[in-house]
Amino acid sequence: MSGFATALKVAAGLTEARLQAEIAALPDTPVRAAMAYAARGGKKLRGFLVLESARLHGIAPEMAVQAASAIEAIHAYSLVHDDLPAMDDDDLRRGQPTVHVKWDEATAILVGDALQTLAFGLLARDDAAPMPQARLALIASLAHAAGGAGMVLGQALDIAAETAATPLSLDEITALQAGKTGALIEWSACAGARMVGADPTHLAAYARALGLAFQIADDILDVEGDAALAGKRLHKDEAAGKATFVSLLGLDGAKARARDLIAEAQEALQVYGNDAQQLREAAQFVIARSN
Amino acid sequence: MSGFATALKVAAGLTEARLQAEIAALPDTPVRAAMAYAARGGKKLRGFLVLESARLHGIAPEMAVQAASAIEAIHAYSLVHDDLPAMDDDDLRRGQPTVHVKWDEATAILVGDALQTLAFGLLARDDAAPMPQARLALIASLAHAAGGAGMVLGQALDIAAETAATPLSLDEITALQAGKTGALIEWSACAGARMVGADPTHLAAYARALGLAFQIADDILDVEGDAALAGKRLHKDEAAGKATFVSLLGLDGAKARARDLIAEAQEALQVYGNDAQQLREAAQFVIARSN
Repeated sequence: MSGFATALKVAAGLTEARLQAEIAALPDTPVRAAMAYAARGGKKLRGFLVLESARLHGIAPEMAVQAASAIEAIHAYSLVHDDLPAMDDDDLRRGQPTVHVKWDEATAILVGDALQTLAFGLLARDDAAPMPQARLALIASLAHAAGGAGMVLGQALDIAAETAATPLSLDEITALQAGKTGALIEWSACAGARMVGADPTHLAAYARALGLAFQIADDILDVEGDAALAGKRLHKDEAAGKATFVSLLGLDGAKARARDLIAEAQEALQVYGNDAQQLREAAQFVIARSN
Repeated sequence: MSGFATALKVAAGLTEARLQAEIAALPDTPVRAAMAYAARGGKKLRGFLVLESARLHGIAPEMAVQAASAIEAIHAYSLVHDDLPAMDDDDLRRGQPTVHVKWDEATAILVGDALQTLAFGLLARDDAAPMPQARLALIASLAHAAGGAGMVLGQALDIAAETAATPLSLDEITALQAGKTGALIEWSACAGARMVGADPTHLAAYARALGLAFQIADDILDVEGDAALAGKRLHKDEAAGKATFVSLLGLDGAKARARDLIAEAQEALQVYGNDAQQLREAAQFVIARSN
């Protein structure tokens, strides 16, 4: 395995173990079982970004793993709610039945709700790592990234787009994705800087380019991918007649745009020199999925 | 108006203004409009408890209003999700159509999600009032009260009860309600103590008795109440064949238990002397609704 593949695997193991331990400490109900199920698997890319961002600022993984687990709990909550019949209505996620299929809709609503709560609890109770002010900054910035000015804004724009008279423009779809997937990726990449009160500007620029490239890669995979490998339903944007980066830029144009964004992401890391090697490889990984 | 009625009205006004200002600062989408709608009205009893608990510990309302708004945001989120078709399937709340009826289910899911996020953001960004450590304690205890060991636990037990072979026992329904409605009421009453690092034991005892009395009063209202005055659908527990405090204790037994609990709540406030007069009147108010 490459250095990046190893680092991603180690980060995923650490993050998932912490998150599962937190869930296992809750009272035993079907909601707890479904929370554990929803938090299982996936690449844990956001957790990896937190741990790498922390390492860049001299913070050891064991000091940053609560923040990494928190962002993965938020990500897992958003997937469970996104998959609900009233939202994207997906029955497959990470190659397994979605929570509302395996349990029921009420359980899926509660699982998402409780995973979000858990994320903020993890950040507030993280006595291992950063100073109180830094932890409050992490919580406030996560609330901004996940809420009605961040991820939920992106989802609200997505819903509005479905009933709009005309398909979204490139600017509109870029704004939508900056909220829907970009905000949590940016929070993750900036977390280490926030933990020590450092300037997150360069990491934010890296993350914005990475997040957009990630979404473009997702749109490419939706057209070109293999559903068995992706572990989820594909071709659904096309079927729904939704504007995507591929429908707006064409397949080659989308691939070129993703490559440009990855170059931009790498450029933003220059200030960190060799220490940012894993983050550079993470950027390569994002387009390797689709090129 | 009594001193309590005035204090409740003032607290509701302060809390709602702060919450609406926070929502108005979000980008303009239907989700934002529905968040404002969901946060409107209601008694704001939890916000009042936060402000009174703060006052008991020498903290002025303007220093505690963010915490009061945060708990009302959590309460509003829980109502919006609870009312969804997959949960309690209610179409009337506070005398108005519920969010999923007025908008749609996807919007209601996002509204609940974003209101929860907003609550934690409010507590993290509250630079007016308590010290960072106290704010982290508020956030951690709110996450405990709202999550899979608190409110969501109560809701999970409630769902499990619907498919159980036998109706719940008195102990089981008491445990269910301690989570479902008790945990947020307890957090609210203890908030002022947590803001100054004082011992919340007596306030917690007050709140546990108050919360249980509140739920018993709700069960009594469900049987005896006037739907137009209550602003929501009544007789639904009876129709669903659900065990309630009234079905288990009888109407007179339930009223007697509520009165005992209110005496217990008042008793727990002795240590605060006359300063706790509003909290005492709040306890009277809870059973006045149903006696």
